[in-house]
Amino acid sequence: MSLSDNILLDEHQDHRTLPQIRKQETRARLLDAAQKVFALCGFDAASVSLIAAEAGLSKGALYVHFDSKEALFREILLGYVQRRSAATAARLGPDVPLRNAIVQIIEGAWTIHQDGTSCTLLSTEFFALAGRSAWGREAMASIFDHCSLALIGFLDAAKERGEVRPDIDSATAARLMLALHDGLVLQWQTQPDDIDPKAYIAPMSEMIIAYISVRNTAP
Amino acid sequence: MSLSDNILLDEHQDHRTLPQIRKQETRARLLDAAQKVFALCGFDAASVSLIAAEAGLSKGALYVHFDSKEALFREILLGYVQRRSAATAARLGPDVPLRNAIVQIIEGAWTIHQDGTSCTLLSTEFFALAGRSAWGREAMASIFDHCSLALIGFLDAAKERGEVRPDIDSATAARLMLALHDGLVLQWQTQPDDIDPKAYIAPMSEMIIAYISVRNTAP
Repeated sequence: MSLSDNILLDEHQDHRTLPQIRKQETRARLLDAAQKVFALCGFDAASVSLIAAEAGLSKGALYVHFDSKEALFREILLGYVQRRSAATAARLGPDVPLRNAIVQIIEGAWTIHQDGTSCTLLSTEFFALAGRSAWGREAMASIFDHCSLALIGFLDAAKERGEVRPDIDSATAARLMLALHDGLVLQWQTQPDDIDPKAYIAPMSEMIIAYISVRNTAP
Repeated sequence: MSLSDNILLDEHQDHRTLPQIRKQETRARLLDAAQKVFALCGFDAASVSLIAAEAGLSKGALYVHFDSKEALFREILLGYVQRRSAATAARLGPDVPLRNAIVQIIEGAWTIHQDGTSCTLLSTEFFALAGRSAWGREAMASIFDHCSLALIGFLDAAKERGEVRPDIDSATAARLMLALHDGLVLQWQTQPDDIDPKAYIAPMSEMIIAYISVRNTAP
């Protein structure tokens, strides 16, 4: 099936074939089902059988698309992070002032968390898995790297434009920005009634800007 | 047994009785065993039987001291956080300048994580549990509140001394400081070879100081 897909893809590079559309729809259905099952049961209790049943497919059909529940989990998280990065990157450019850019990066990250709580549930589940399994650590490391690289690129460009202090190490600043976000997601998830994520966009931005901006005098 | 403990406690208020010493030793043994089992198996796979066996006790003996594995888990985390707070508070006073105080707060938090990785494993496991269960959320919320209150007290005192900007909201700044710490713990756990926790004490401190210190001009 994937062979015929490839042949057809070569012939019509801009249009998906019917088998390709079906394949992508099935993958999307499996990913949706897996996301529901993981969020509801947690990773350990979730099984390939449960996920296949939720998607209305057989276990065998699931294995055509994904090797394991680990692969499904990784794909869900990576897809989420890639969508987040792409949406933020699309809104940023050299004309956006540093303060606005930082606010947009943080707003973008929070908006996706607000879209559906299952993303948040999955990412915290992921934190625990990363602590217990090599595949979890590798998957999480690749997600961190994806986000870090995007932020480092942004910070380096802002440094070249003279908006970010030259003594700021972009890789370190990127890690701190990610840490601030992840840490606040954890608090929000734990105390949803005490935290209004929108109320933290301004102070988070202010903290980051105070640290990186050339407008602050070195102490 | 607890009744006779209380009677003996009333008679010799400053000295623990032999039954009390035994009781505390047994509790400590159970907490140690539980910490090992949780870190090794994760919360879901850990069982009261496994924990009792690891401690060399019967399940019945365990239930004399703890109602459930949830109670054991909560007690381990709370004990860890209380030790961390007390150790940091002992090192701080009105004579310690803001910069040094912030560095000490962050150093203290990291030092405890370096003492044994099981604390880190437990706290990330805890993040996932807080996402899935009401007891986990309540326990985590109480730990956040414990840490927040300590930091708010510190920030309010520093504000009174004129070291922290008057427009900084102490509760918000405390949340951001905790988020920064928790987020970096997660990264460190995921990429232990890429992150030297000690290398982040200075930039974390710098970010927080840039945000709260009166020495920065408002943008």
